[in-house]
Amino acid sequence: DHSPTSCSLKGGAMGWILPATDQFFERGVEAPSGSLWPLPRSLCISPSRLQLAQSRFQIVHGPGSTAGPGCSLLQDAFRRYYEYLFGYTKWQNHDRKPLITSADSECDKYPALTSDEAYQLSIAESAAVLKAEKVWGALRGCLLYTSRCFLINESEITDYPRFAHRGILIDTSRHYLPLKSILTNLDAMAFNKFNVLHWHIVDDQSFPYQSVTFPELSNKGAYTYNHIYTPTDVQLVIEYARLRGIRVIPEFDTPGNTESWGKGQKDLLTTCYNGKQPSGSYGPVNPILNTTYEFVAEFFKEISTVFPDAYIHFGGDEVDFTCWRSNPDVQDFMKKQGFGFDYTKLESYYIKEVLETVSSLNKRSMVWQEVFDNGVKIKPDTIVEVWMGHLYPSELSRVTKAGYTTVLAAPWYLDYISYGQDWKKYYSVEPLDFLGCEMQKKLVVGGEACLWGEFVDATNLTPRLWPRASAVGERLWSSENVTNIKDAYNRLAKHRCRMLG
Amino acid sequence: DHSPTSCSLKGGAMGWILPATDQFFERGVEAPSGSLWPLPRSLCISPSRLQLAQSRFQIVHGPGSTAGPGCSLLQDAFRRYYEYLFGYTKWQNHDRKPLITSADSECDKYPALTSDEAYQLSIAESAAVLKAEKVWGALRGCLLYTSRCFLINESEITDYPRFAHRGILIDTSRHYLPLKSILTNLDAMAFNKFNVLHWHIVDDQSFPYQSVTFPELSNKGAYTYNHIYTPTDVQLVIEYARLRGIRVIPEFDTPGNTESWGKGQKDLLTTCYNGKQPSGSYGPVNPILNTTYEFVAEFFKEISTVFPDAYIHFGGDEVDFTCWRSNPDVQDFMKKQGFGFDYTKLESYYIKEVLETVSSLNKRSMVWQEVFDNGVKIKPDTIVEVWMGHLYPSELSRVTKAGYTTVLAAPWYLDYISYGQDWKKYYSVEPLDFLGCEMQKKLVVGGEACLWGEFVDATNLTPRLWPRASAVGERLWSSENVTNIKDAYNRLAKHRCRMLG
Repeated sequence: DHSPTSCSLKGGAMGWILPATDQFFERGVEAPSGSLWPLPRSLCISPSRLQLAQSRFQIVHGPGSTAGPGCSLLQDAFRRYYEYLFGYTKWQNHDRKPLITSADSECDKYPALTSDEAYQLSIAESAAVLKAEKVWGALRGCLLYTSRCFLINESEITDYPRFAHRGILIDTSRHYLPLKSILTNLDAMAFNKFNVLHWHIVDDQSFPYQSVTFPELSNKGAYTYNHIYTPTDVQLVIEYARLRGIRVIPEFDTPGNTESWGKGQKDLLTTCYNGKQPSGSYGPVNPILNTTYEFVAEFFKEISTVFPDAYIHFGGDEVDFTCWRSNPDVQDFMKKQGFGFDYTKLESYYIKEVLETVSSLNKRSMVWQEVFDNGVKIKPDTIVEVWMGHLYPSELSRVTKAGYTTVLAAPWYLDYISYGQDWKKYYSVEPLDFLGCEMQKKLVVGGEACLWGEFVDATNLTPRLWPRASAVGERLWSSENVTNIKDAYNRLAKHRCRMLG
Repeated sequence: DHSPTSCSLKGGAMGWILPATDQFFERGVEAPSGSLWPLPRSLCISPSRLQLAQSRFQIVHGPGSTAGPGCSLLQDAFRRYYEYLFGYTKWQNHDRKPLITSADSECDKYPALTSDEAYQLSIAESAAVLKAEKVWGALRGCLLYTSRCFLINESEITDYPRFAHRGILIDTSRHYLPLKSILTNLDAMAFNKFNVLHWHIVDDQSFPYQSVTFPELSNKGAYTYNHIYTPTDVQLVIEYARLRGIRVIPEFDTPGNTESWGKGQKDLLTTCYNGKQPSGSYGPVNPILNTTYEFVAEFFKEISTVFPDAYIHFGGDEVDFTCWRSNPDVQDFMKKQGFGFDYTKLESYYIKEVLETVSSLNKRSMVWQEVFDNGVKIKPDTIVEVWMGHLYPSELSRVTKAGYTTVLAAPWYLDYISYGQDWKKYYSVEPLDFLGCEMQKKLVVGGEACLWGEFVDATNLTPRLWPRASAVGERLWSSENVTNIKDAYNRLAKHRCRMLG
């Protein structure tokens, strides 16, 4: 059983790492029954308090460790952590080894869906020891939060995530997000043990991704020449994320939601007709031209090099067939292919081509649920993302019954704001609460909190997303039975203050 | 007729002070049909474009002006304005006179409900001339917004507000707002021609106002010793507001919503009973003790000195009678006074005393609508603030029929957030759309956008309030017939970008 336990607790509240009177927090927040967020899988807290002394505080690398001080990822994490605890005083590098117990610490690798994020942390009078197989676990274990007085309880923590894919979707097409917003968001994600940035980078509204192969895409499709992500920007985001154990999965949604693509890539989009005449507007990607597939192959070849993650998200949602239907050339093509009037077959035709291209690039695909719903032939290793709010448990049943891995986003569309504490709604979702056998449940590899950009830009991203997304963070990390909303409230109130620094 | 007019306009869009291609703004915002916000009462724009040259740009004081360069209020405003236009380059003080046409410019005064905010602005090749009776009008007239290329149209503006009281309510009790948040908000208010900061400074949750006479109120009632407004802080807010033509009306809500008062002022609150025993909890201010009235007199004497505005807001809303009913001493008092079981009479008794105290201090009162609804005898010069969302037009009818001046807040509770462009809802309110004769309508002196603090603090105040409150700002300043939502959208989109600097 992996439920959190509090042991050796005699009298009083659990008081995790909190001083007797805590001046950090405003009144109205009740006394905490523990303040870690997300709650570790197993947690033993002794009532005896230790004082953390800055002068004696060291993060040393254990003698059995395989990741030495040369592991800049860990050094970087420890420096951040030290600064968080003690303010921006100088972090001293100690020439010892961390307790990474595996021969390959993965220090120079990228995090992946299969990365080991487990860690053990023991805090005793003599020393605090953090053990992990891989650096990813060590990153997750940097979670000692002290009060102003640096008091801390003796404790033992064994921890690992419930779900492997814990994502935040940001949308840089509806509104451009400056680099700083994205990095700030990665910091907040790390604070909440999220490990996937789902970067919905382009859409109808704008194309801020600067392609080396097709520079006209952003030259013509970005809001302005300023509202772009250069290759350097993208590398910076990827490395900043890696140092926090966060994967970056870019989404290049096709064939719909591509209006901005058409501005810089001639003939990519379907010409819509009004009777016998072109109407002047354009629809989804044109699936009947060879040039389309040549473009797709070249474009995704670049994307697969730029983004190191094993997955690319291809969207595939919300394809409107009206324009395809209006176009006489498309009508001819349908006839020749024997598709009749079933435009989902044309969509399938296109997406199958794209997914084969991707697969030849040694990448795996993520797609939105319509791709599955419309019967497109998809590879068994594709991840289907469920986003439609209506009856999503049945969709999870269907997707997993068909044997596909899935990620749940539907109940966590955080751009839909409302008055009051809606975090409780997000917190109360149980992702595995759908009809299906054990094997099906195992196919749910995680979830994503989505902040679509219609009403979000740098001015409101952080306060709109956090700490509401923290609720999703705990749901995806902690045990299934961590559902006490009052305890969550108390811990989250503390956690929010910690996030504010 | 005071509707905005566009004259001498030949061909093309109105193009108020906008270059041909405007790189300021993201796509998706349509071409502007004019970008001033709030829209002036009368506005004539010529298509001929002028170039504003920083090297030749001066704000000079006209020869007929009565407010000389010694008027630091104007100097300060001009410096801010210059910096806004040209960035933070040095502002040169020119030794000439502004065109303030009244003998008393009111430069060293505080703005008031009766302040004259009218101005005339003419922009021609030879010079731009800003004329105003008083400094308050000159402040409102600093609204030339140029593009990056400093292009500007020849124009003539005559402008003055539709309503005299245009307020923003902030709540520093539910969450403390650091001084910086308040000042930033005052800047945003000035940008939208708001002229009243309704400072709901204390409430049940905390008492951040540091009283010189009763220091225990904030010592015990503030969230922490840090979460207070010292006398210096309060003076700073008042002066910062004055320099922007904004009044500061503090609200000290009694007899309900006073839990935090009880912590630092013994016997002020009513002891609640559970049968024959005190229950341990406290209710509204105790209205039967002489000590209460002595405290009230002394406390408001201080408040009337600290806050220069002619009005103090006394709240009077949401008084819960349960505790009064439970208390045997209060029951006796009711009997002696012949109040029967009508606790609104007890409330009236208390409020009447308070209002008389205030009046003896030469201050006028603002109160929430319940004070009127419950039949409290209030002075004719009291302003009744209507806040209850349900059927507020009938309440406006009743209040004005009884001859009271009123301010409307009900449709503008901006803390109630929802998905999408709710500014349209706020914009579409017509404050005078209630049954009543012309004399009644004249008693509506304005309105307030309220941002209650349950879910607001420094992290989200600005993006939550702005530009949503701008919708209320235009409704209260511009002509009744300025209601075109599409035109408003275009102007507001520009205005938002301007606010972001």
